[in-house]
Amino acid sequence: MQERKIQSQQSRHQTENDSFRCELISFDEVLRLSRTLARKIKASGYMPDLIVAIGRGGYVPGRLVSDFLIFNDLTSMKIEHYSRAADMREEARIKFPIPVDITGKKVLIVDDITDTGETLNLAVGYALSLNPASVRTAVLQHKVCSGFTPDFYAQKILKWRWIIYPWARYEDLAGFTEKIIQNGALDISQIKVEFKHRYGLNLKETEILEILDDLTERGELESTEQDKRKLWSIKR
Amino acid sequence: MQERKIQSQQSRHQTENDSFRCELISFDEVLRLSRTLARKIKASGYMPDLIVAIGRGGYVPGRLVSDFLIFNDLTSMKIEHYSRAADMREEARIKFPIPVDITGKKVLIVDDITDTGETLNLAVGYALSLNPASVRTAVLQHKVCSGFTPDFYAQKILKWRWIIYPWARYEDLAGFTEKIIQNGALDISQIKVEFKHRYGLNLKETEILEILDDLTERGELESTEQDKRKLWSIKR
Repeated sequence: MQERKIQSQQSRHQTENDSFRCELISFDEVLRLSRTLARKIKASGYMPDLIVAIGRGGYVPGRLVSDFLIFNDLTSMKIEHYSRAADMREEARIKFPIPVDITGKKVLIVDDITDTGETLNLAVGYALSLNPASVRTAVLQHKVCSGFTPDFYAQKILKWRWIIYPWARYEDLAGFTEKIIQNGALDISQIKVEFKHRYGLNLKETEILEILDDLTERGELESTEQDKRKLWSIKR
Repeated sequence: MQERKIQSQQSRHQTENDSFRCELISFDEVLRLSRTLARKIKASGYMPDLIVAIGRGGYVPGRLVSDFLIFNDLTSMKIEHYSRAADMREEARIKFPIPVDITGKKVLIVDDITDTGETLNLAVGYALSLNPASVRTAVLQHKVCSGFTPDFYAQKILKWRWIIYPWARYEDLAGFTEKIIQNGALDISQIKVEFKHRYGLNLKETEILEILDDLTERGELESTEQDKRKLWSIKR
């Protein structure tokens, strides 16, 4: 899991808060990475008794790895990151626990990516407290800057960037959209340019418009008409 | 969830045990279906407090729907289907429960598909026993022959067929491969022809070979050489 607030507020791999390099990952790439990850797990001779997908980032990788391993016992746990108002720090905690007794079991925890490493650190510590036989970790992509090195990963990421997986694309782009217009109203072509400028993302206007309409419907944005241009801004 | 043994042994929608129509679904199609499903949920005015993905089929749809709804609280439960040796019937049971208190909550259960409907029937009954405010159900595809009609679905399937989702493709094709060679050793081109003949599937030999090698490594198949042809059969 990538920790959005941590990386945007504190990461040493990023020079400004509101501009950083992103990479969109396709489902074809996710399939390739998941197959590679499953092969590495098999090749190691290790076979878990239980796979635990970290929610929400590990759901798709967990399901795909369990397919390539022809493995049935997939469950999940949820970790959430929250801000401590007192010191503006982000902390992680277990939101939904592992719903089954793992005593004496070989547990494989699967997530999409290591970023700071805090998620897997917490997940492993929690799982170990439940007396399993062993706990191992697997991710599709491992950022080498992470403070946690998983046992298995399909690919190393050497140069920090924000990875946008297909299952988080909508929410990620919605978050970026709100950042882009937070200092003032912009029209669709300006927003599109900002996506390219700030995040290196070439998006279609239709995709951005869908998000703008959706956020407006949710009451988070509002739009005004000016010189026949439609402008979006954060609803105050 | 499609119930493989039920459908292959008992379904009235199928004339023989070892031949039935299949359809491969791409991830692009899954994205379209998930977006449609999320739109229908939003359009209804309903917003859950918790989304519960059914394991394992609901993991990817659950994650994608939660993205399109920009919804955070995703968890899972696992239902398994098992054979009762006494009467050769398949039954379903809760394997991993919902790991969080749902008292007073609006719960949305997400799965990939309704087939017999037994999975969602059991899941809803179980969830209702935990005193939620309400329980609703959503699937990507709803077979109209199902005994259970979900509250939300992206698409109706009128004519029964076995749907192969990208997250179950490997295991599904491995299962079909074992059926194809269960009555005798076949070479790769014969297996490819049988995939087309029995299931209507045009597969590449490379994909079948990978599965054959994998099942051989797992000790489930064995191969022999005959007249310079490599033949695969079930390991006895």
